[in-house]
Amino acid sequence: MITAARIKQIRSLTQKKFRKELSLFVVEGEKAVSELLLHKNWEINHIYALESWLIENTIPGNIPSDRVSEKELSRISSLTTPNSVLALVNIPVWNINDINPSGDITLMLDNIQDPGNLGTIIRTADWFGIDNIICSENTVEVFNPKVIQASMGSFMRVKVFYTSLKKYLENLPEPLPVMGAMLDGEDLYKTGLPGRGFLITGNESQGISPELVKLINRKIRIPLFHKAGKTQQPESLNAGIATGIILSHLRNYVS
Amino acid sequence: MITAARIKQIRSLTQKKFRKELSLFVVEGEKAVSELLLHKNWEINHIYALESWLIENTIPGNIPSDRVSEKELSRISSLTTPNSVLALVNIPVWNINDINPSGDITLMLDNIQDPGNLGTIIRTADWFGIDNIICSENTVEVFNPKVIQASMGSFMRVKVFYTSLKKYLENLPEPLPVMGAMLDGEDLYKTGLPGRGFLITGNESQGISPELVKLINRKIRIPLFHKAGKTQQPESLNAGIATGIILSHLRNYVS
Repeated sequence: MITAARIKQIRSLTQKKFRKELSLFVVEGEKAVSELLLHKNWEINHIYALESWLIENTIPGNIPSDRVSEKELSRISSLTTPNSVLALVNIPVWNINDINPSGDITLMLDNIQDPGNLGTIIRTADWFGIDNIICSENTVEVFNPKVIQASMGSFMRVKVFYTSLKKYLENLPEPLPVMGAMLDGEDLYKTGLPGRGFLITGNESQGISPELVKLINRKIRIPLFHKAGKTQQPESLNAGIATGIILSHLRNYVS
Repeated sequence: MITAARIKQIRSLTQKKFRKELSLFVVEGEKAVSELLLHKNWEINHIYALESWLIENTIPGNIPSDRVSEKELSRISSLTTPNSVLALVNIPVWNINDINPSGDITLMLDNIQDPGNLGTIIRTADWFGIDNIICSENTVEVFNPKVIQASMGSFMRVKVFYTSLKKYLENLPEPLPVMGAMLDGEDLYKTGLPGRGFLITGNESQGISPELVKLINRKIRIPLFHKAGKTQQPESLNAGIATGIILSHLRNYVS
């Protein structure tokens, strides 16, 4: 059973404003909620689940839970096909000063707008063992339900920070390699690349903003495959695809 | 000016059933329509555009066009923010028997469901000079407006066919390498791969179907980056990301 006021509140969490106000976000799906229950770094605020889910799962006593009907679940879910469980989770407080970028690759996202792209990039970063992603302040918020969904659980393992990328890079205690995919960069397959530093991925249509381009010291390019007879060519790769190709390369071919 | 009946008809093209019935699909956006006008292989049936677009562009005399208001355009558009032009395009008739897969890489998609994924895969295939994609019959249709949009114009340069992948592979006149990304495959970075044959990408959650797995003769794996201290790992990469990484590798590192 769930009150109308509570339904309204949960539904409001699709909006950033209310997520911020309530410091909560939504995680849906059996697999993601099961994983969340195992993570000590994430605090579940409330679980709403079908009876079938509640019978098969154990919830620690300190986490409040409610049994809901399929109809109730569909009213609080933002999925087209609701799953059997929905969790409200406390938004964690992370401090960007706690991370030390000097010994590993850190991903930087400049103005990524599409929630599906951000979720897929988090999932990809997780695959390639990237611990931290630093986003520009105008990048879509990580706790957007579409981002959480597309990350396929990887949001639990990769920390996502928001700050001014320019200021962050300008105030590093020591200079580090700053890589970025640019059409005029060095061929990814013909150059050696460092195993640490930053990789910047730019906006879906505008690419990396000019103020950040200036701070890139390793421009790299994923070569376009030129085919005889083709008169027109694509202009770019999708931001997530480009990030995946470069990360895969960085993790397997570092000089 | 556009009639209510015509608006209804154009809106019906978001559904596969009506696209098939009318043999038409929708292309939106200045860039995509400009490119279409240059392509001889694509037949534009009708153009609906704002006055501003019509003033700046030349349309061949044999293509009917109508000036529409912003309000009318928003009624026929399937975009949240409609552009200045929408084209109805005849669905082309392609014959899979016209392609010869023996000398190049052909992509095969097994039950890809997400239109954004298909569009991104087409765009990626275009970047890596793949001419043909063969999809299983249950893969989302290429003329779905979300696929067209996500392909960023690449649908014009990559031919997409639908057939039974199993039958197609079983009836090849000569045996060819059949590659597929599988968790138990050879490390992509530690094995040599052929420069021709098929690369199969599987469904977003189920992967490649068992009947096709049997036909794969080169199982490959994108290595997961193992990081000390991480107790949980992601299960897989997004289908588009995996395809991009393997295609990029195939085009740059073939043995």
